[in-house]
Amino acid sequence: MSTNLRIDGARLTARLAELAAIGATPEGGCRRLALTDEDRQGRDWLVNQLEGLGLDIRIDAIGNIVGILKGQEDGPAVIMGSHIDTVGTGGRYDGALGVVAGVEVLAALRDAGLVPKRDLAVIAFTNEEGARFHPDMLGSYVWAGGMSVAAAHAEVDSDGVGLGAELKRIGYEGAEQPGFLPAHAYLEYHIEQGPVLENEGGGIGAVTGIQAIVWLELTLKGRPSHAGTTPMAYRKDPGLAAARIAIFANELTKTIPGQLANMGVIRVQPANVNVVPETVTMTLDLRNPDDASLARAEEAVRSFCAELSVRDDIAISFRDLARFPATPFAEPLIAEVERSAAEFGLPVRRMISGAGHDAQMMSRICPTAMIFIPSIGGLSHNPAEFSTEDDIVAGANVLLSAAWRLANA
Amino acid sequence: MSTNLRIDGARLTARLAELAAIGATPEGGCRRLALTDEDRQGRDWLVNQLEGLGLDIRIDAIGNIVGILKGQEDGPAVIMGSHIDTVGTGGRYDGALGVVAGVEVLAALRDAGLVPKRDLAVIAFTNEEGARFHPDMLGSYVWAGGMSVAAAHAEVDSDGVGLGAELKRIGYEGAEQPGFLPAHAYLEYHIEQGPVLENEGGGIGAVTGIQAIVWLELTLKGRPSHAGTTPMAYRKDPGLAAARIAIFANELTKTIPGQLANMGVIRVQPANVNVVPETVTMTLDLRNPDDASLARAEEAVRSFCAELSVRDDIAISFRDLARFPATPFAEPLIAEVERSAAEFGLPVRRMISGAGHDAQMMSRICPTAMIFIPSIGGLSHNPAEFSTEDDIVAGANVLLSAAWRLANA
Repeated sequence: MSTNLRIDGARLTARLAELAAIGATPEGGCRRLALTDEDRQGRDWLVNQLEGLGLDIRIDAIGNIVGILKGQEDGPAVIMGSHIDTVGTGGRYDGALGVVAGVEVLAALRDAGLVPKRDLAVIAFTNEEGARFHPDMLGSYVWAGGMSVAAAHAEVDSDGVGLGAELKRIGYEGAEQPGFLPAHAYLEYHIEQGPVLENEGGGIGAVTGIQAIVWLELTLKGRPSHAGTTPMAYRKDPGLAAARIAIFANELTKTIPGQLANMGVIRVQPANVNVVPETVTMTLDLRNPDDASLARAEEAVRSFCAELSVRDDIAISFRDLARFPATPFAEPLIAEVERSAAEFGLPVRRMISGAGHDAQMMSRICPTAMIFIPSIGGLSHNPAEFSTEDDIVAGANVLLSAAWRLANA
Repeated sequence: MSTNLRIDGARLTARLAELAAIGATPEGGCRRLALTDEDRQGRDWLVNQLEGLGLDIRIDAIGNIVGILKGQEDGPAVIMGSHIDTVGTGGRYDGALGVVAGVEVLAALRDAGLVPKRDLAVIAFTNEEGARFHPDMLGSYVWAGGMSVAAAHAEVDSDGVGLGAELKRIGYEGAEQPGFLPAHAYLEYHIEQGPVLENEGGGIGAVTGIQAIVWLELTLKGRPSHAGTTPMAYRKDPGLAAARIAIFANELTKTIPGQLANMGVIRVQPANVNVVPETVTMTLDLRNPDDASLARAEEAVRSFCAELSVRDDIAISFRDLARFPATPFAEPLIAEVERSAAEFGLPVRRMISGAGHDAQMMSRICPTAMIFIPSIGGLSHNPAEFSTEDDIVAGANVLLSAAWRLANA
C-alpha cells in the first residue's frame, strides 16, 4: 500500500520556499535565531500549516510545537521532527526540511484519506542550533528529560535576555509538559551537512548514529622572549608546541579508524612578530563513531602533551568544552529507512552523522533513526547550503514510507 | 693613561635612578613613550645634566639631543649615544644606560680636567623604540640621512597625532640639521636584552654587528568546513598548513648556522571549535648574522610553502613586514672594545646583536661598535629588566676607555 503513497513534490518545495522567505538574507540564506521575531514568524507560519491539515496542535512549556494526526488506536506515537531555528548565517534546509517534510507526510495521508493505527506527529524543537541560547538541541533535550523546564527558561543569550522571557514575548510558552506525547519511534529527516553522499554518488543516507565527541581547550604556557636576542636553545615556545599538537592530532586520524580531529581555534599572546609567545590557547575537536576509539585518541593526545610538556618545559592544561558519548540509533529503524529507500529504487548507504541533531536527544527515550540526503559541496551553516529538489522529494518519500509503516506496525 | 680614568659608579647609579623616576611604573619599570610629557621630562632632566657639565648643547630638527665636549682640534667627533624613550611597559636600562653612561664619561673627563684631541659627544636619539611612531630608530635614521626631516615630522601615532606637532608641543624641535656633527666613530653601550652573556659567565659583549632580519606575513586560504561532518580527506585546512610551516621554520634553525625563527602571530578565521578554518594569518621573524644564510632560510621557507600549497591545495601569499640586511660593525672599534675590557680585567666575548639599535643607523655614516652587558634572565621590554650595578659600572668604564682612546687617536 505504501508504494502508492507519494509526497506532493511541488507542494513540499513551495512550503519550503515560504518558510525560507521568513528571515531570508540577501545572500540567499536564512536568519531565524531561536525565539527572535523571525523565529516567531516561522512558528506562526508552521502553526498555520498544521491548522490547514486539521491536526491537533500542542505547544509545550519550552516552545516545542507539536502537530498530531490521531491514529485509530491509543498508545505511543510515531514522531517526525527537526527544528526551524537557524544559525546567524544559516541556509534554507538545515532543520526546516525535516519539519516541512513531516508536514507533507501528514498532508499526503490526509489527501489519501488514510488514518494510521498509531498517532503520527511532527515536532519542531526549540533552539536546536544553540546559536542564541545554550545548550544546542535544547528543546529536544528538555523533551527527553535531560534538563528541567525551569533551568531552560533561566538560560540567557549573549545580551543577557532570558529564554523564558523570550518564549513569553513571542507567545510560544505553551501549556503542555515537554515529553507529554509518549513516543513509539522518532524519525528525523535532515540534509547531510557534509560531502560524503554527494561524493559517493548521491542517494539516501541511512544514519546509524551520531558520533562521540570531545572538545578540549588546551592552554600552553611558555616563556615570552625577544625573537632576535634569545638563542633558540633558551626559548620555551608554546606556539611551536601547539603546532606539534595540531599535527599529532591530525596524524591520529590516519591510524585510528573513523577518527576526526580539528584545531579550530588558536590564539597566541602577546602576539607580536618579534616576541616568542608566552601563552597559547587552542581547541581540539575530536570525534569518532566509537567511544573506545575516541577515548584512545584523547589519551594519545594527552600522553603526547605530557611528553612535550616535559621535553620543552611548556605547562599544558586541559579544559573540557564538550563531551558526549556516541549515540547509536535503533537497528530496526535503520533497516526501515533502507527498506523505504529500496522501495523507491534509491541508492542507500549506512553512514554516521558527523553533527549533533535532535535525534540524539530523542534516542534517549525511544527507538530513533535519521534520513540524510546529499548537501551539495558539503556546505552547512552557510547561505549557499543546497540540496537538489529531486533529492529533497526523494528523502521526503523515504520519510513518508518509513513513518507510515512504523505507524501501522 | 686611561687606566687611571674611572667612572664614578655611585653617581652613574644615582643618575640612572633619577631618570628611571621619570615615567616610573608601579611594576618598577618605565613608560616614556616618545614625545609624550614623560619623554619631555626625561629630556629636560638630560639637558639639565649636560648643562651641569658645561657642554655645548644642541637640539636638531627631529629632537635628537646632543651634548658636545669640545676637543683640542677641529674635525669629526667621537659620538656616544642611545635613546631615552621606552616602550609602553619598558624597563629602566634599555637606552637610558647608554645615554647616562655617555654623560658620565664626559663628567669623568671634566672631573679629571682632561680634554680629548677630538670633540667627544653624547646623543639621545628620538623615538628609537618605535612604540609610538614608525619607524623605530627614527632619530638616528634621520641623522644618518635615511629619511627626511619632513617625512619624519609627517609620521602620526595610532591616535593620529603628528610627530612634528608633538616635537613642537614639548619644545624639542631644535634648530640644527640632523647629522650636523660629523662623526669619526660611534659607540653605543646597551644592555644585551638577551640571555647569552649571563649564561656564558657574564662580562662584556663586544658586538660585531646587527643580524639581518626578514619579517614575513603569510596568509593561508583553505576551505571552511564542518569539523564533524567533513571526512579528513575532504578538508583543506590552512591551520594544519600553518603548523607545518612553523615547525619547518624551527627545523631550519638546526641546519643553518646562526639562524633564528619565530612564529609570533597566528590568527585563524572563523575561529570556531567545530569549523575547519578558512583563513590563517601568521608571521615569521627570521634572523641571521649572515645575509646569504638568511636568504637561504627564506628561500627554504618559500619552497616548502610552494610544495605545501600544491599538496594540500592551500593558497599561500606572502607580504614583507620588514627586511634589513646584516649590519657588520667596524673591526677596529670592535677591537677597541675588547682592548678596553681586557684593560679592566673583564671577560669579553664577541657576539651579534639580536635586536636593532641606533648603532645600526649610525654605521651607515661612520665606524661603529657596541658594548653589551648581561641582562638578568634575558628580560627585555619588561618592567623586570635588570642588570647588576657591577656590570653597569664595568660597561661604563669600557665605554670611557674606548671613547677616550678613539677621541685621541
